[in-house]
Amino acid sequence: MIYVPGGRTTTRPWTDTEAVFRQESHFFYLTGVEEPDHHLLLDVERRHATLLIPDYGADHALWSGPPPTCASVQERYAPDAVAVATADTIKRLLDGAQPAQLLVLPGTDLAALPDAWRERARQDESAAAPLLQTAFAEARIIKNAGEQALLRRAGAVSAAAHVALMQGVRGCATEREAQALFEYECFRHDAPIQAYTPIVAAGRAGAVLHYTKNTAPLPRNSDDLLLVDAGAEVSCYAADITRTYPLSGRFTGLYKTTYEIVLETQKAVLAALKPGVAWEAMHTLALQTTAAGLQRAGLVRADVAVDELMAHDIPALFLPHGLGHAIGLDVHDAGGYPKGTPRIDRPSYRYLRMRRDLQAGMAVTVEPGCYFVDAILDAALANPDQARYLVADRVAQFRREVGGVRIEDDVLITDTGYENLTAGVPKEMAEIEALMAQ
Amino acid sequence: MIYVPGGRTTTRPWTDTEAVFRQESHFFYLTGVEEPDHHLLLDVERRHATLLIPDYGADHALWSGPPPTCASVQERYAPDAVAVATADTIKRLLDGAQPAQLLVLPGTDLAALPDAWRERARQDESAAAPLLQTAFAEARIIKNAGEQALLRRAGAVSAAAHVALMQGVRGCATEREAQALFEYECFRHDAPIQAYTPIVAAGRAGAVLHYTKNTAPLPRNSDDLLLVDAGAEVSCYAADITRTYPLSGRFTGLYKTTYEIVLETQKAVLAALKPGVAWEAMHTLALQTTAAGLQRAGLVRADVAVDELMAHDIPALFLPHGLGHAIGLDVHDAGGYPKGTPRIDRPSYRYLRMRRDLQAGMAVTVEPGCYFVDAILDAALANPDQARYLVADRVAQFRREVGGVRIEDDVLITDTGYENLTAGVPKEMAEIEALMAQ
Repeated sequence: MIYVPGGRTTTRPWTDTEAVFRQESHFFYLTGVEEPDHHLLLDVERRHATLLIPDYGADHALWSGPPPTCASVQERYAPDAVAVATADTIKRLLDGAQPAQLLVLPGTDLAALPDAWRERARQDESAAAPLLQTAFAEARIIKNAGEQALLRRAGAVSAAAHVALMQGVRGCATEREAQALFEYECFRHDAPIQAYTPIVAAGRAGAVLHYTKNTAPLPRNSDDLLLVDAGAEVSCYAADITRTYPLSGRFTGLYKTTYEIVLETQKAVLAALKPGVAWEAMHTLALQTTAAGLQRAGLVRADVAVDELMAHDIPALFLPHGLGHAIGLDVHDAGGYPKGTPRIDRPSYRYLRMRRDLQAGMAVTVEPGCYFVDAILDAALANPDQARYLVADRVAQFRREVGGVRIEDDVLITDTGYENLTAGVPKEMAEIEALMAQ
Repeated sequence: MIYVPGGRTTTRPWTDTEAVFRQESHFFYLTGVEEPDHHLLLDVERRHATLLIPDYGADHALWSGPPPTCASVQERYAPDAVAVATADTIKRLLDGAQPAQLLVLPGTDLAALPDAWRERARQDESAAAPLLQTAFAEARIIKNAGEQALLRRAGAVSAAAHVALMQGVRGCATEREAQALFEYECFRHDAPIQAYTPIVAAGRAGAVLHYTKNTAPLPRNSDDLLLVDAGAEVSCYAADITRTYPLSGRFTGLYKTTYEIVLETQKAVLAALKPGVAWEAMHTLALQTTAAGLQRAGLVRADVAVDELMAHDIPALFLPHGLGHAIGLDVHDAGGYPKGTPRIDRPSYRYLRMRRDLQAGMAVTVEPGCYFVDAILDAALANPDQARYLVADRVAQFRREVGGVRIEDDVLITDTGYENLTAGVPKEMAEIEALMAQ
């Protein structure tokens, strides 16, 4: 048998202030239940699932209205059986079934299990953990039709919020106001939970890859870029979208040059997506396309072959993160590295979050970027082996003005190619300029 | 010595998705630090505070920009000393000080302590827990000038968001859209964190005291009431405001009658607030004033003395919760029941969250209500001892239409009376109607 507890109601320490609840992803995958304090017992041999609901208590009717019942839960979620999660019931179910193994994920909260079965689960844990982790990862990496529909909705709601922000950003005094507007547009369209903390980075802050402070003022009528990496969840399924655009509404100068490099890279990768393609090959393609763009922009020596730049990890100085990752119930979804697949231990591939062949039904992000990160460029310029490929004056010119550009969409791999789940927000410069001018 | 760890960075289980961070209240009270993964060592005899900052690691500069340093933290928060929270440093500090006791709150995460000191803290815990809890409660119950300023800002931002919602609610199709608009107005005015999950309850849902589903549609042009209980934090200090108003913008019929009962009760309590008054006496005053209102509304027999109604817990059938609670770093703040003060074991006082004499510098909510809760009224009507005081037909008439009304403000007790921290949002019917008509 497999025991999977759902997420529990949590309060801030030493208070009764409840945190906003978001279901644990594996539990949601197995049950579809978004409410807290449930448990699941799966009898693998009998193929029988028992959903255990909270013992809501007598005060529930007074404070929170009539609680769900076993019958209403049975009708809504259709498990094989429903019971109230009392200690007695859980003991009776386990004692009755007498499973040969009781499998749990490592770190599972076993407090609800009877003592004997808790010990049993702990004994089985070291054997069970890799088995269960692989099972969840391999099940979740391919999205079924229902999951695809939810990803489509998450993508559409989040794309619409990006459009609303493009139209409204010039009324926002700070990065925080822009973040607030984005979250509001998601929330009011039934997506109250963000899939991750939004990054709203103006100007040079775009070079801070995990910038989430979002408190700086937004200069008016500046050609500076705003990088917005944000996406909401719909029924726990995530979107993850980045757009980068000028606060003035007009792409100009070095900002435009940087944007062109990234847009071309993203299009090159999208055009190559289909089942059977290895994700690390897509990452290589992104680095190669970026290298050519850097040469045209005069940032990197143009008289050197792209392969030589790759061999010296030059493109990764400007695109230091991975091309993208699986997306689903988690923004960085389970299943990026199948069991036995190691990371590639080279600077250009170190942060790659996925390494497997694409299959129809996989959902991934495609998110190349081009950044001018002081810590990286200073180190490269001090390293003769890399410095000789860089055009120092031109690099200095860019890093004075440009933070970074990232363009990120979520795609579903299809039998013949891909479906863009986040096409609702434009990325062509002319389209963005037209939207912002409205 | 006292050891207090701050809140830690948390991720959703089995993912790298970080939760929105909110500092633990006691730690914030002692340090003012809003960032995660800090620790505090207080040497009580030496009156010496050491703030321990996270070991940010080498990748921080790449992903999150240059990290804070001991020097920058020293300058910003001015503790007696700052050090990096490595295992070695913590061991050296404790070994060096050799405190006679190491006090921690019960349930404190002791993982960062060296083994020997962790055992020591556990040994001291049963003696230390009541001491520390009382110390925190008694320190936090009286707000100093800096805390008062933050409560004033939280009150003002939250009141302004209520005003914006009153003006915008008729453009909201659902309770959730109304909640989204409220949170947006707080967020964009630098209050991104709600002090608690908002209650947005239309019509009969107003009778569900802890209604937080907030998903029902809002009927257009209905005289139904919308109850909105919501407040944001400013630098961890909470506001807690309830307003109840008609979706149509006009107070009419039984809705208006119910509203008048609650407004009169709230005003009666506010007029009586001053240092030296016992909070349970204010709760009694609220029940008495409500009783008289219920009599005038014809819900309760008018030929019976209020004292007799009180003796049979009749007003509490309509006002089943407590009058209010301390507010500060937590919405239900520490210090409601001083050490040794028991709860009052009577139905009318069971849910009272505070029982102490008011003092200047205390901040409390004043939140009477009047509700028509099926579970409560059905039980009362089936109980001859209570049923004989109720006018059953009139009760039936109200509960068909009215859910509930609550009016809640946050006040600071002053030397001579009180300051209303949330006066920025109107509660007079004419003022609300005028706002909604704009």
